[in-house]
Amino acid sequence: MVGASDCPPPIAERAYAVGRAVAAAGAVLICGGLGGVMQAAARGARDAGGLTVGIVPGPRHQDANPFVDITIVTDLGHARNAIVVRSSHAMIALPGEYGTLSEVALGLKMGIPVVGLGAWTHLEGVIPAAAPEEAVAHALERAKRIYATPR
Amino acid sequence: MVGASDCPPPIAERAYAVGRAVAAAGAVLICGGLGGVMQAAARGARDAGGLTVGIVPGPRHQDANPFVDITIVTDLGHARNAIVVRSSHAMIALPGEYGTLSEVALGLKMGIPVVGLGAWTHLEGVIPAAAPEEAVAHALERAKRIYATPR
Amino acid sequence: MVGASDCPPPIAERAYAVGRAVAAAGAVLICGGLGGVMQAAARGARDAGGLTVGIVPGPRHQDANPFVDITIVTDLGHARNAIVVRSSHAMIALPGEYGTLSEVALGLKMGIPVVGLGAWTHLEGVIPAAAPEEAVAHALERAKRIYATPR
Amino acid sequence: MVGASDCPPPIAERAYAVGRAVAAAGAVLICGGLGGVMQAAARGARDAGGLTVGIVPGPRHQDANPFVDITIVTDLGHARNAIVVRSSHAMIALPGEYGTLSEVALGLKMGIPVVGLGAWTHLEGVIPAAAPEEAVAHALERAKRIYATPR
Repeated sequence: MVGASDCPPPIAERAYAVGRAVAAAGAVLICGGLGGVMQAAARGARDAGGLTVGIVPGPRHQDANPFVDITIVTDLGHARNAIVVRSSHAMIALPGEYGTLSEVALGLKMGIPVVGLGAWTHLEGVIPAAAPEEAVAHALERAKRIYATPR
Repeated sequence: MVGASDCPPPIAERAYAVGRAVAAAGAVLICGGLGGVMQAAARGARDAGGLTVGIVPGPRHQDANPFVDITIVTDLGHARNAIVVRSSHAMIALPGEYGTLSEVALGLKMGIPVVGLGAWTHLEGVIPAAAPEEAVAHALERAKRIYATPR
Repeated sequence: MVGASDCPPPIAERAYAVGRAVAAAGAVLICGGLGGVMQAAARGARDAGGLTVGIVPGPRHQDANPFVDITIVTDLGHARNAIVVRSSHAMIALPGEYGTLSEVALGLKMGIPVVGLGAWTHLEGVIPAAAPEEAVAHALERAKRIYATPR
Repeated sequence: MVGASDCPPPIAERAYAVGRAVAAAGAVLICGGLGGVMQAAARGARDAGGLTVGIVPGPRHQDANPFVDITIVTDLGHARNAIVVRSSHAMIALPGEYGTLSEVALGLKMGIPVVGLGAWTHLEGVIPAAAPEEAVAHALERAKRIYATPR
């Protein structure tokens, strides 16, 4: 789950719904651990009884939002984006700015399935979704398909 | 929990006991996710019903040992050591070689409590422990003390 | 200087011209150290008597192309992109794919001047240039302006 | 070249002499770019007409000491130590504390020749040297031997 660290209420609501759906499906929510879309999604996942991981860019556990269960403290600045992406079996991208774009681009580069929920669908390879539940369904299906393939 | 990726049975047994005690205390076990001490500790934690996090140096989820619940895929090589250390509230160090030494040194440098279980106690600042349960008790107490301090 | 690690001859020629112009201006060329645009630019800079730095993603000095003078060996995978960007006073971006896009996005996010040479100009904040010399002139001027500002 | 970021004058003098000898041999000095041993060595190298590289942990070019020619801005915190080590063909270690120890340990782990100048010689694998010129001679000889080996 990637998106803006500062976002308007309608986007936060969608992020919250994504978090709920991820948890409802029994999956772990991984995000960048900060505010905005990250916080809303973590709150949604926790409200639905799920487990949340926040991979924060700074040097402190306290940098994570209060809905993160497991904080990975990287102190890597923007280089932590690559770890958020690499640690995900599939990504759901909400609207964001250039930080989010760098994550979407890395996901596409690394061959990780990227679902765009109302955003980023102009980029080749992004799987479009119109609603949070649909985004989560796409993400989980792609993730499973990849992991079912013999390596 | 840090230590060698390849270790003799008596060390693995101690690591297993550390993992069990961490989980019994309700704490999350964070390790480097590979074999040896890391795998034994993760197995111990899982056997005791705990949650395990493995922060692996390579680019694949499959690099983690089978007892890791949450895999953080860094693709950072040895630079991932800094994240293992930074993400821990306290460290328990078992015998290891230079990779482990680099983690112990970083922990001391960053001000993270480091408990040495039969190892590293010649380094100033390492808290000595003779048995796994004692090591875990020391680690949790130091972690609590730090987090109880107003920031 | 960022761009594709595999590129057609006309793009390589432009990258070569960028390298020459960077060196002619007395600036240091920083790139990702691999092939394609990175190699062409490094060759151009060296041919014009300049100094070249390659920040490679892998673990070996030999990963750098033969026109790199100073190899920074990161072993960070794609996370090295953030260092290429952060170490630059200004960036010149040639056509590329998602790896390059992640670098352009990070540059814009970090507030580093990004000049797009026949590419990326649809992204808000990218400074357009039509020719290599023009791109280098824009990049150096922006870099100077930033460094002339009292901090 | 690794060592403390804060050091007494006799250590700084030795670091300065190491920098001079590195430059006199035509080699590039790579260091962490900050103060103490790093600054003294960079000053020595520059005084002898050499080229200096500083790989800084923070997010700003200005973090580098004034004797660094090429600044690599990592914003990786202590994880940048792995890059300082990995980018070196051989390391010379002066006295330092736990940050330096983590670098020495990583160098030994990665198989990079580590010369200890009045320090670290209790660690197996560290090559002892009594004087700056001797340390540089050892370092360059080991580096050459490694690079002469067919890969």
